[in-house]
Amino acid sequence: MKPFFQVKTSQEIFKLIQGFPLLPDERVLLSEGLNRVLAEDILSPEDLPHFPRATMDGYAVRARDTFGASEAVPALLTLSGEIVMGQDVKAPIETGHCFRIATGGMVPPGADSVVMIEHTQQLDSKTIEIFKSVSPLDYVIQVGEDIKKGQPVLFTGQRLRPQDLGLLAGLGVVDIPVYHQPKVAIISTGDEILPVEEQPPPGFIRDINAITLQTLTAEFGALPAFLGRVRDHFEDLKALCQKGLEQADVILVSGGSSVGVRDHTLEVIHGFPGAKILAHGISISPGKPTILARVGDKIFWGLPGHTVSAMIVFALFVNPSLKHLEGEKIGRPIPGVQARLTRNIVSAQGREEYIRVALKKGEMGWEAVPVLGKSGLISTMVRADGIIRIDQNCEGLEKGEWVEVILF
Amino acid sequence: MKPFFQVKTSQEIFKLIQGFPLLPDERVLLSEGLNRVLAEDILSPEDLPHFPRATMDGYAVRARDTFGASEAVPALLTLSGEIVMGQDVKAPIETGHCFRIATGGMVPPGADSVVMIEHTQQLDSKTIEIFKSVSPLDYVIQVGEDIKKGQPVLFTGQRLRPQDLGLLAGLGVVDIPVYHQPKVAIISTGDEILPVEEQPPPGFIRDINAITLQTLTAEFGALPAFLGRVRDHFEDLKALCQKGLEQADVILVSGGSSVGVRDHTLEVIHGFPGAKILAHGISISPGKPTILARVGDKIFWGLPGHTVSAMIVFALFVNPSLKHLEGEKIGRPIPGVQARLTRNIVSAQGREEYIRVALKKGEMGWEAVPVLGKSGLISTMVRADGIIRIDQNCEGLEKGEWVEVILF
Repeated sequence: MKPFFQVKTSQEIFKLIQGFPLLPDERVLLSEGLNRVLAEDILSPEDLPHFPRATMDGYAVRARDTFGASEAVPALLTLSGEIVMGQDVKAPIETGHCFRIATGGMVPPGADSVVMIEHTQQLDSKTIEIFKSVSPLDYVIQVGEDIKKGQPVLFTGQRLRPQDLGLLAGLGVVDIPVYHQPKVAIISTGDEILPVEEQPPPGFIRDINAITLQTLTAEFGALPAFLGRVRDHFEDLKALCQKGLEQADVILVSGGSSVGVRDHTLEVIHGFPGAKILAHGISISPGKPTILARVGDKIFWGLPGHTVSAMIVFALFVNPSLKHLEGEKIGRPIPGVQARLTRNIVSAQGREEYIRVALKKGEMGWEAVPVLGKSGLISTMVRADGIIRIDQNCEGLEKGEWVEVILF
Repeated sequence: MKPFFQVKTSQEIFKLIQGFPLLPDERVLLSEGLNRVLAEDILSPEDLPHFPRATMDGYAVRARDTFGASEAVPALLTLSGEIVMGQDVKAPIETGHCFRIATGGMVPPGADSVVMIEHTQQLDSKTIEIFKSVSPLDYVIQVGEDIKKGQPVLFTGQRLRPQDLGLLAGLGVVDIPVYHQPKVAIISTGDEILPVEEQPPPGFIRDINAITLQTLTAEFGALPAFLGRVRDHFEDLKALCQKGLEQADVILVSGGSSVGVRDHTLEVIHGFPGAKILAHGISISPGKPTILARVGDKIFWGLPGHTVSAMIVFALFVNPSLKHLEGEKIGRPIPGVQARLTRNIVSAQGREEYIRVALKKGEMGWEAVPVLGKSGLISTMVRADGIIRIDQNCEGLEKGEWVEVILF
């Protein structure tokens, strides 16, 4: 059996990932923009709003006409009319006058504020009593107050959320430059692996990693394609990997944790022109028997066969590699959930360790309850809500310590 | 203008939501199961694994044959052969013998543990030196150790994650009982609202809520359909709401923050047979001008026109209403990110207040930086990473206090 020749740390893996070129960009419609990553900075083509808008139902006024107004001594203003929604009001408001206005209406020239309807009373068809003074700009969104023309509003590498798309909609940006979504080819290996529909005889098990890796990929927002299962056979594995390289940006070969398959995976990679093994082993637990290789511009991952290990390597490294290809910055801290550990955990020094935990709401906040069990047991991931990290220089964590849970 | 007649608290809104019947259930394939909610408990139809599996490459042994083995005094075992992956091994292992085995291989009858290959050396074709003793069960997953036959593994109301699907795959459960995904009809209202493709003249603005609500719905995992924009016109609004009731489970009418539209929305709802206004106003800020109604079994939401308010009401209430229809329990605490507030915030008592915040990694952990600005400004949501809650009985929060950020 070959040992792991090029064991890398997490930080080294991140650097290696960042060495791959980004995917090309394309333009998509606003309606297709959710969860896509911007390939250009967006400068606002216009002011938002482009006219002053009321934020309350009430009366548009010149603030100074209300100064000193109170319940006891109301200001009396002459009603010039009503601002109809969508109306472009051109005539300036006269001193001592007001316009009835609804939320979102255009504040007329000369008016600088809105008095809420609750602080007014209509005396007759022409006269409004104002019981409370307002300051200039009260209850008005000014021109460009949301966004100024020319202002950079969204940036290359940002993943678009609903509010980001809302902003683009407000500015009329309907054609959005984004990076391609990574296409991910998924291959399961192992002589003992059967399709989930089959009843496995003794010695055989159903393929768990195929569905897990496909749905992790889809959940991330990339495009998974399951290419199939392959036995521990060099030519078959090579043919399927070749197919993956032709149609995908990232190849995930899982299940090659048995000696033969792992060796075959390495040999298959070496057989592709210009291929380079970047890592053979990562100094984490679980997840050590991982291969990272480059074939042309494609990322090739050999994932551990143990389902827990494969999921953790996906979350820690495959996911960032997809982010990187799609133009997102990686390696920045991602907020997790702070929780208090419910028991001591011992860890071996010299490698990062990841512990599955379940979250429980305690009296003092969230509690992280370690879920113990071998990394071949999928049930431990089902019982867990996330994982916590133990640093490679740390001998363990103590009961009651605060930990940051990466949700799963 | 009609005042808010039935202002409810958050807790009352949750109770009202829980009064709606769940959607019917259906069966989907495992490959379609991501993010769906289980409509039945799943009991394991079999043991997982159904044969004892090695978790390391090495030699399957009887542990007692290794007792006392060390580097200085290795145990010598006779090699009986190799366990081929997928092989059903029937002949029991003899005393003093071992089988070469790979990760995932079937541990033969009589063997109870595996010695890692690192702790062995092959002396000749028939003899293996063992340098380290093992205990029974070391490096073996026993029959049913992951899941026992008949054990409940996943429960009604659980939303399926990749690992849950992995477990179902492992057990051969390929036909999954789940609740229907809610269909959500989205309608924008307001005389001043134009499609995003148009250049709005003064007084008009582009429709922000349409894309925001559609993508919030899609991100949640429900099925949005945008029915269109309607002016402040009773019959038009009624016709579009009627269409929504025919084809969706949930109707979202947004933008009715101007007096006329709000009144029309109420009248339209009242016009449907069996309709009932459940809430007219929620005691939160922003988001007060919200309507919740029941028309038959359908949920009708009238959302504030201000885009920030609409998003916050979606996150706090519409989202849980979708969860409820789809069979998920609601009202349980959801873990957020603990962060330290960077400045004082004053809040009015008597209503819950939600403050937008940006997250920043500080030396002491995460910091929540309040993003101030009117609730009509979409840019404030773009700059924010989430929201924090100030209780209705709280006068405000102090700089340095720990807050829980609900990510957005």
